[in-house]
Amino acid sequence: MTREQIVVGAADMIRRRGLNATSIREVAKHAGTPLGSTYHYFPGGKGQLATEAVRWAADTVSGLLAAKLRKGPVDGVRAFFALWRQIVTETEFRAGCPVLAVSVEDTTDGEALAAAAEAFRTWSAQLAESLREHGVAGDRADRLAALAVAAAEGAVAMCRAQRSVQPLDDVAAELAALLESAIGART
Amino acid sequence: MTREQIVVGAADMIRRRGLNATSIREVAKHAGTPLGSTYHYFPGGKGQLATEAVRWAADTVSGLLAAKLRKGPVDGVRAFFALWRQIVTETEFRAGCPVLAVSVEDTTDGEALAAAAEAFRTWSAQLAESLREHGVAGDRADRLAALAVAAAEGAVAMCRAQRSVQPLDDVAAELAALLESAIGART
Repeated sequence: MTREQIVVGAADMIRRRGLNATSIREVAKHAGTPLGSTYHYFPGGKGQLATEAVRWAADTVSGLLAAKLRKGPVDGVRAFFALWRQIVTETEFRAGCPVLAVSVEDTTDGEALAAAAEAFRTWSAQLAESLREHGVAGDRADRLAALAVAAAEGAVAMCRAQRSVQPLDDVAAELAALLESAIGART
Repeated sequence: MTREQIVVGAADMIRRRGLNATSIREVAKHAGTPLGSTYHYFPGGKGQLATEAVRWAADTVSGLLAAKLRKGPVDGVRAFFALWRQIVTETEFRAGCPVLAVSVEDTTDGEALAAAAEAFRTWSAQLAESLREHGVAGDRADRLAALAVAAAEGAVAMCRAQRSVQPLDDVAAELAALLESAIGART
């Protein structure tokens, strides 16, 4: 069990239960690691582990986005939504986004919350940059990117509550059409 | 301290900290009510209180939406976003949506989760109905309504993480333009 596997396990627990219900003790148990080793890896305790879990999720999604955006913003957004769809269906609507989870608990450690803000900013900036490369004006590219990220995050929560992928599918369809239109209008 | 005030207090605690970090004991303390009285009002315990808190939030938002939708879907969506903007700014980004909060914790009581699903469905249905009344085709009205609700919920989380209202403002501007265009295209 490596350090990274503990981080991945923490991200999984956070995206399922939320941050407050995630403890170092349970992450260690889940990972089959002695509690002492876990504290050795993460001397800053739960706040440090949560921060690294958020950063790991941010980087994973960001890497996928970067790869898919090479084919353009619509492909990128479709892949972004497909990722969340896969997560909610594979886990039978029990898991969502760990970045959102730490954002909606007022008890969140400041560093973990800053990591969440950075994740949202990075994903939005990647998408906005791709839209600009495809001719969408600067301000509008930023707004459309924020809309895509916000809509995916909200739709994941709606899917979990409704035990249905319909919200993600509906939202992805409208967004793809909107981005196609925004690109078409400028090229 | 009435029964309803306990429900409102629970909704406030849930939208700030999440469901897991909300306890009957703390809700009672916050409301200045003996724990025994709280259990007298809510014999089903935390699950019942959470369910009623979600329903109270659902009804409050639904009432506001119904009133604002009388002027049309764009006014309704603007008011929906203005409500969330007010909540995050008034609480200095410490509170969001209690319906989303209970949707993203896998430990959520089944009845409370069902109430959250119902809340999302109700808000979406109200908006979709208004869009249909303004000439948007049935399926598209459903998709646009889901997009508006999902985007608002996601943007609230982004605002809390980023300590900024920019995501809500960006998303609201794009959505208003999109809905205006959808209505204009059909009438």
